[in-house]
Amino acid sequence: MPSYTPPLRDMQFVMHELLHVMDDLQQIPKHAELDADTVNAVLEEGGKFAAEVIFPLNISGDAEGCSLDQTSHQVTTPKGFKAAYQQYIEGGWAALACDANFGGQDLPLVVNQMFYEMMNSANQAWTMYPGLTHGAYAALHTHGTEAQKQTYLHKMTSGEWTGSMCLTEPHCGTDLGLMRSKAEPQLDGTYKITGTKIFISAGEHDLTENIVHLVLARLTDAPPGIKGVSLFIVPKFHVNADGSLGERNAIFCGGLEHKMGINGSATCQMMLDGAIGTLVGQPNKGMQGMFVMMNAARLGVGNQSLGLTEVAYQNALVYAKERIQMRALSGPKAKELPADPIIVHPDVRRALLTAKAYAEGGRALMTYCSMLLEKEHYHPDEKVRKDSGEMLALLTPIVKAFITDNGWTATSGCMQVFGGHGYIKQSGMEQFVRDARINMIYEGTNTIQSLDLLGRKVLSNNGATLKKFGKLIGQLVAEEGVNEKMAEFITPIAILGEQMSKFTTEIGFKAFQNPDEVGAAAVDYLRVAGHMVFGYFWARMAQVALREIEKQSAAGGAGNQDMFYVAKLQTARFYFAKLFPETATAMRTARTGARVLMDTDAVFA
Amino acid sequence: MPSYTPPLRDMQFVMHELLHVMDDLQQIPKHAELDADTVNAVLEEGGKFAAEVIFPLNISGDAEGCSLDQTSHQVTTPKGFKAAYQQYIEGGWAALACDANFGGQDLPLVVNQMFYEMMNSANQAWTMYPGLTHGAYAALHTHGTEAQKQTYLHKMTSGEWTGSMCLTEPHCGTDLGLMRSKAEPQLDGTYKITGTKIFISAGEHDLTENIVHLVLARLTDAPPGIKGVSLFIVPKFHVNADGSLGERNAIFCGGLEHKMGINGSATCQMMLDGAIGTLVGQPNKGMQGMFVMMNAARLGVGNQSLGLTEVAYQNALVYAKERIQMRALSGPKAKELPADPIIVHPDVRRALLTAKAYAEGGRALMTYCSMLLEKEHYHPDEKVRKDSGEMLALLTPIVKAFITDNGWTATSGCMQVFGGHGYIKQSGMEQFVRDARINMIYEGTNTIQSLDLLGRKVLSNNGATLKKFGKLIGQLVAEEGVNEKMAEFITPIAILGEQMSKFTTEIGFKAFQNPDEVGAAAVDYLRVAGHMVFGYFWARMAQVALREIEKQSAAGGAGNQDMFYVAKLQTARFYFAKLFPETATAMRTARTGARVLMDTDAVFA
Repeated sequence: MPSYTPPLRDMQFVMHELLHVMDDLQQIPKHAELDADTVNAVLEEGGKFAAEVIFPLNISGDAEGCSLDQTSHQVTTPKGFKAAYQQYIEGGWAALACDANFGGQDLPLVVNQMFYEMMNSANQAWTMYPGLTHGAYAALHTHGTEAQKQTYLHKMTSGEWTGSMCLTEPHCGTDLGLMRSKAEPQLDGTYKITGTKIFISAGEHDLTENIVHLVLARLTDAPPGIKGVSLFIVPKFHVNADGSLGERNAIFCGGLEHKMGINGSATCQMMLDGAIGTLVGQPNKGMQGMFVMMNAARLGVGNQSLGLTEVAYQNALVYAKERIQMRALSGPKAKELPADPIIVHPDVRRALLTAKAYAEGGRALMTYCSMLLEKEHYHPDEKVRKDSGEMLALLTPIVKAFITDNGWTATSGCMQVFGGHGYIKQSGMEQFVRDARINMIYEGTNTIQSLDLLGRKVLSNNGATLKKFGKLIGQLVAEEGVNEKMAEFITPIAILGEQMSKFTTEIGFKAFQNPDEVGAAAVDYLRVAGHMVFGYFWARMAQVALREIEKQSAAGGAGNQDMFYVAKLQTARFYFAKLFPETATAMRTARTGARVLMDTDAVFA
Repeated sequence: MPSYTPPLRDMQFVMHELLHVMDDLQQIPKHAELDADTVNAVLEEGGKFAAEVIFPLNISGDAEGCSLDQTSHQVTTPKGFKAAYQQYIEGGWAALACDANFGGQDLPLVVNQMFYEMMNSANQAWTMYPGLTHGAYAALHTHGTEAQKQTYLHKMTSGEWTGSMCLTEPHCGTDLGLMRSKAEPQLDGTYKITGTKIFISAGEHDLTENIVHLVLARLTDAPPGIKGVSLFIVPKFHVNADGSLGERNAIFCGGLEHKMGINGSATCQMMLDGAIGTLVGQPNKGMQGMFVMMNAARLGVGNQSLGLTEVAYQNALVYAKERIQMRALSGPKAKELPADPIIVHPDVRRALLTAKAYAEGGRALMTYCSMLLEKEHYHPDEKVRKDSGEMLALLTPIVKAFITDNGWTATSGCMQVFGGHGYIKQSGMEQFVRDARINMIYEGTNTIQSLDLLGRKVLSNNGATLKKFGKLIGQLVAEEGVNEKMAEFITPIAILGEQMSKFTTEIGFKAFQNPDEVGAAAVDYLRVAGHMVFGYFWARMAQVALREIEKQSAAGGAGNQDMFYVAKLQTARFYFAKLFPETATAMRTARTGARVLMDTDAVFA
């Protein structure tokens, strides 16, 4: 059976030693009094919830799955899920980063992100029930009327009600402009909504007494396409004026999907049969609210694969130290045993270090993004808000696609460490791989992310935001360019930083002549951009580690505490030697352009 | 629901236009009378069996899985498996390439390989029941006594009995030297075998009345380690002198594994409780027979992923042409529809072409290897036999690891084409991915394959066999080096061919100082060698296609027939532009060596 230990030390490193988040947070009025000890203590408790309450339900939830009673349309979640959710409510976990005006704890988003990383490590399927609520909460908080907020946000903050995002229809996933669900205005100002939604995570379940569905549909007089889509609140049960539950609304689960993974998460087909909803925001402007949910969800999905990468790493590491098989090529290491532990083999270390480097690089990027989101919403300085929002927009598709592609590689590599035992359900390793696979698909496939990055976030503003990230690299190069010990980390990112602007210009120029060049280059481009970003954070992590090691060795001590920084430095070296060079191939294949893909009429005749 | 069409046209291309297998086969006495039409006709019928009989059982077999009655130790296979197996026997399919002396049809191995490719496309899990028989057959055919052969081979040839390979034990997979199963000699010359074996595919099932287990165990006086392992036949039921079944032997299935995939295949824990067996070959020389099975199995595993790559490609292609979503970046293509079919998007084509290029490259390599195996065993000229065996030894780890790694990439990419629908079991796509995953693990993990390639097949003979492959490339370069139309295919392999010998020498030199350098470079090395081999075959396929296109255009015709060759050429272009450049990164990361992997004491403390 697998195990999980919350990576609290590394979380503290990223927050307090790498990104100094408290300095930023103290500039935000609502966090002015917050201290690092409180943040750390909350995460320690959160880690206990993840490791002790929901992690033990991960394998059993996968095996049991959800079931639907076709008559009552009730969904039953796996054994233990409901009791765990009750503990989640009682612990106040739903409220962590929510607005105090609606009963929230007003803690920084970074705390919620790290809590979710741990829950995702422990049980991604379970975590989707509370997880979907945050996007719905954010959409309502931003675009809802005061009455809507008062009606729904308190209960979502307490966790008593969950939320859902009802977007996809059988014939439209990526292309929401094809949507058919209809909303007819009623005399009382509400809307009667009819249609079928699919792939609705947490669309129905038995964890809470009510579910707040956010539904996209077209008004009867809506213009065609994406400009005719509106957003509605459609509660499972209507809410009376006093806050008590009223009648059952006509939104039902008609079927559950049988999936490759996340089997404990109910993926519902939802039938709206004249369900009554209220409009969120302006008519035909549903995409605004949708994008609030979607951007939150995209960061959340990156965080899911970060969690899976971490837990897969931890378990592969344990196994690699315990399992004995063959001798080291360089001669026996554990002479007292009949064979060496497999961690002596270089390729086993490669698999482990790949997962570790992707997990820790991903954690740095996720945390940086949480701070950008915090600043975008709550920083007193308008320019900081604007700059943070732009940088976050650039990094969001990288978080979503790069971290989830890496998560697939890492979980599969960690499973491989187990040999045949990894393919067996009992080890828990293959579940991490199956669960990780959805993260490359939902909330916009990774190809869609790459088009968003290259087309919308880079080329459409002539690389302006990308250049701002380039400046961060430039600053680091300026700081450390003469430090010989940092050369192995600085040189590659300095070179890539320079190549990147030429590379981007080249693609932009080709795209000007043929827009398919964007589609042909985008996936490779995202891989390169991802390594540019990870390379930057790994260089900064190496910088912090080197300074600590020097400080401690100047002080004459070389205790255990050192090992954290030495390990960080060794992982940074591995990252630049074995993972970062993926950019060489990705730039080369991107440059071969669209022709070999599109001049294929005979293949696809 | 997925569909499958046997790729007969491409099989004929590979056999008759690319490799001219009939020319080689006609030099082998037993095939002297064979003609291409017969071969094609057998494969056409074989394709029908695959597509019509076992393909319809693929999804249902995965959902149902196998079950074990703990009292009777009987395993029940999924519904329909037994009836399909009966049809397999009745069609004479088990006998295709078996020795006529034991009732076989003496057809070339290449026919069996292509038949198995189609069965693997159709249903890998089902195909493992007959598939395991071939390795056991080959081990007995090579190392069995005449009496053993007479007792067992007729029934294995007819398919009435299947075989198994009982190697792995709970504490030893890769490292068979750690084996504990014991064989005590009896007065009658048989052995009493006691031990536990795990991960035994087709170890128990209800398809046949008897199972011929080939079991590795240690004689009571055996030397320690791998040099003390012997091979035994342990039938499920003893066989009387008249060929009828005798008593039940003490080899039982004690448990079935629950796995990520190939759920229709029974993966058995086998308990030997004083089971009676007879020795195959010499005492303590069990590894000789084991390697006969293992080499057959390794080629077979490559063929499994080839089959999955092909079927995943076919289904993703159908979906990409049907599913409409978004418009092409270069403007609407299907103006009459509300959106374009997703095949207009460059990255969807990249996924499809990746699978197609890996399937067709893999088919060329597999077929080339089947011919080497044929020549190794049956060619009248001893030098041809020896050379063929050496080349096959070099290529076997590439077949096993390169094709299965590619199969993972390809099936996952084809699943991604389906978006969310690919994650749903109904589409059948996620099963191809789950099934493909085991192929990277069993019969020696892909890391073990890479160590076999670099350590044993390349460095240990100073690259002598590798140089012979280099000569094939050299010949092609000499033939086509001045043909401008071939330059795009010839240049990359000419360059890589030259780099390869320097690259190999470099690693060899480093390995001389530190053996861990082999382990650190091996996986990357195999990726580079794989592309060298695939690049060679893709260049040759482009050569054939170009000649045909020129011939046909000189004849003034440009009918539909042309499209096959044009498609081949377009796929070759894609391969060299988008897949082959993986070598750039792999050579770079290999060169960063062992230090960053092994100087990681703080990470793995």
